[in-house]
Amino acid sequence: MPCEVRVIGLAGVPELEEGDDLGLLLAEACGRAGGLDHGDVVVVAQKAVSKAEGRIVHLASVDPSPRAIELAGEEGDPRQVEVILRESAEVVRSRAPLVIARTPHGFVCASAGVDASNAKGPETVILLPVDPDASAAGLRERLAELTGIAPGVIVSDSFGRAWRQGTTDVALGVAGLTALRDLRGSHDAVGYELRSTLIAVADEIAGAAELVLGKSTGIPAAIVRGADVAGEGSGQDLVMPRDRDLFP
Amino acid sequence: MPCEVRVIGLAGVPELEEGDDLGLLLAEACGRAGGLDHGDVVVVAQKAVSKAEGRIVHLASVDPSPRAIELAGEEGDPRQVEVILRESAEVVRSRAPLVIARTPHGFVCASAGVDASNAKGPETVILLPVDPDASAAGLRERLAELTGIAPGVIVSDSFGRAWRQGTTDVALGVAGLTALRDLRGSHDAVGYELRSTLIAVADEIAGAAELVLGKSTGIPAAIVRGADVAGEGSGQDLVMPRDRDLFP
Repeated sequence: MPCEVRVIGLAGVPELEEGDDLGLLLAEACGRAGGLDHGDVVVVAQKAVSKAEGRIVHLASVDPSPRAIELAGEEGDPRQVEVILRESAEVVRSRAPLVIARTPHGFVCASAGVDASNAKGPETVILLPVDPDASAAGLRERLAELTGIAPGVIVSDSFGRAWRQGTTDVALGVAGLTALRDLRGSHDAVGYELRSTLIAVADEIAGAAELVLGKSTGIPAAIVRGADVAGEGSGQDLVMPRDRDLFP
Repeated sequence: MPCEVRVIGLAGVPELEEGDDLGLLLAEACGRAGGLDHGDVVVVAQKAVSKAEGRIVHLASVDPSPRAIELAGEEGDPRQVEVILRESAEVVRSRAPLVIARTPHGFVCASAGVDASNAKGPETVILLPVDPDASAAGLRERLAELTGIAPGVIVSDSFGRAWRQGTTDVALGVAGLTALRDLRGSHDAVGYELRSTLIAVADEIAGAAELVLGKSTGIPAAIVRGADVAGEGSGQDLVMPRDRDLFP
């Protein structure tokens, strides 16, 4: 077996509206890309999922709190910051108009994942799915129903990192694949126990998919083939438990 | 053009020794994989590079300082921690025997990148290359000389992250490709300026390669094809400048 992983962009998915059958649109796109294989992982951009789930807020309806006005500074939109605060369990850092927050899911990210880019107009913002693992599981089930193959599904988003420039795509929601590959107890070529024992394969798959998603705005999803990650992981596997976190 | 990225494992590279011509071994492995194409990126595991560069320390030669003994705690090897301290510009966090350090390159990572796993015996550790960008540039030059094609080259390593479980591979050294894709000023499908404007494509490529490298200990490198990242980046592009870092 050649040791190869392929990342295949899924084009032709139309601009999404609340209530759209995203699973059907993805199944059709997979068909145009030659169909799904057993073991495939379908990576879907969070924005596509959130739009189909109606996770959109019209800023005209938002009344900013004094704290939102303060955190927005002179450059930010206090209504947008108000939405960010409502989507946050905790503000981790802020430097107006930038807010790094911990979401109720446990994700630490810019703007609590609230995104104005590619929203449905200048006066709307897009929120993260309420339960990205459930979103992934629902898409997996729908794809299985329509194609006869239950792929792994990742709902991905672009996150910044501490200490490193630029974003990489990571896995917020996961269904039908291993999120963390556990090498504990396995041994390397010269027989010593491996030190780096937990590999965040779902994040690496999300990042690999971004290489295709990022090339064009018309590609909200990709198939990743050959990664050998069948399993039962969760996006929550990738969230560091607070009691183990050196950066809590 | 199909929108596809391929990650092709490079097998058959022997266990490396100081002074080995790693560029030649990679050129031969690329030949066995069907050859290089223009625009390919060759990702090489840091350990392979460090071994060929002789970045190995025999612990028997190390006399641990009192601070190393303290940081090692009861579980750690004080000689190994002493090497970590020598490779560190700054200790960022510690919880015995774990040390998170900033290296002279500016990388924040576990053990300052010092690695006992897959070393050449239980009494040796492997250090990061002195200048990973120079290592990447040297391999690029040698591959061009031998194959007629100058690929992008990434020297990769597995780093942990704040707030997220598991490691992902990132780019320490970069030659002949864009490390950060800058979307500032570009506009998305509905015409609004994009918010997430810097994409760490070299880190995403390193992570994609890990999906193949991690499957077997006999694959220290991979070709990533189709990512469209020709350019002149550096591993240092990915290091967050201290004055912009919210987590300094």
